[in-house]
Amino acid sequence: MKKNLQWGALIAAVAFAMPAMAQFKNAEETIKYRKAVFTVMGQHFSQIGAMANGRVPFDAQKAKDDAALVMSLGQLPWAAFGAGTDLGDTKAKPEIWREQAKFKAAAEKTMGELSKLDAAAKTGSIDQIKAAFGAAGQSCKACHDAYRGK
Amino acid sequence: MKKNLQWGALIAAVAFAMPAMAQFKNAEETIKYRKAVFTVMGQHFSQIGAMANGRVPFDAQKAKDDAALVMSLGQLPWAAFGAGTDLGDTKAKPEIWREQAKFKAAAEKTMGELSKLDAAAKTGSIDQIKAAFGAAGQSCKACHDAYRGK
Repeated sequence: MKKNLQWGALIAAVAFAMPAMAQFKNAEETIKYRKAVFTVMGQHFSQIGAMANGRVPFDAQKAKDDAALVMSLGQLPWAAFGAGTDLGDTKAKPEIWREQAKFKAAAEKTMGELSKLDAAAKTGSIDQIKAAFGAAGQSCKACHDAYRGK
Repeated sequence: MKKNLQWGALIAAVAFAMPAMAQFKNAEETIKYRKAVFTVMGQHFSQIGAMANGRVPFDAQKAKDDAALVMSLGQLPWAAFGAGTDLGDTKAKPEIWREQAKFKAAAEKTMGELSKLDAAAKTGSIDQIKAAFGAAGQSCKACHDAYRGK
């Protein structure tokens, strides 16, 4: 399905009405789930970073697999910021629920950058990956700075 | 690539030399990662279960997406049971490291059942999904009973 959509539609589709949308038991499970998604994403994103920054040898297939995985996982957490999931074992700031349109825009921006990273990784060019990784990392960081507490 | 392989080879490939194999900083990060993978997998697996058990209406597309995600995630945790990751914030039993061949066999069995669930979900038949879900759930449980502490 994804391949037939334009990017804007793709991003809207994946970020806020993603196909594998989760149904949660309660706020505690929801929070645990979204944190877990970010943990797994972060690990594979940082593996691309290690190649982009020359800390480990570039492996085009590995970068492609990592980026595809990050892109798949990137679709998941946004549905797990529903009403009532602001309190509990979470560093999520109240601004997420107070500024929902802004948060959604930030999530969409990140999904757009992850799409570009995925596309760059598919080319097999480390230079393209480097450029896309930098932009994606900045987008992650902007959202973390705004919406993740200490 | 996967589609060209026989199942045995697929399972060996994904479970113990999976393409997006993670490189971990330290044991703590490794343990956190594998737990996070199981958390996300468990959520989407249980969503298929909710449909298989009639607790929520059957949605063929959703079941297919959930199963594909479970199958992708199922490739990831096994590499995160390396040497030195037996101690820490984990319920993993020492038997995992003591009986590595048995643990590997249990993981391969689970991956096989998840492959069948993925295939069943692709057919769109709730009856096939029910059968495959039951077997996959038993396989998950057998491994948890043997290798996950309280």
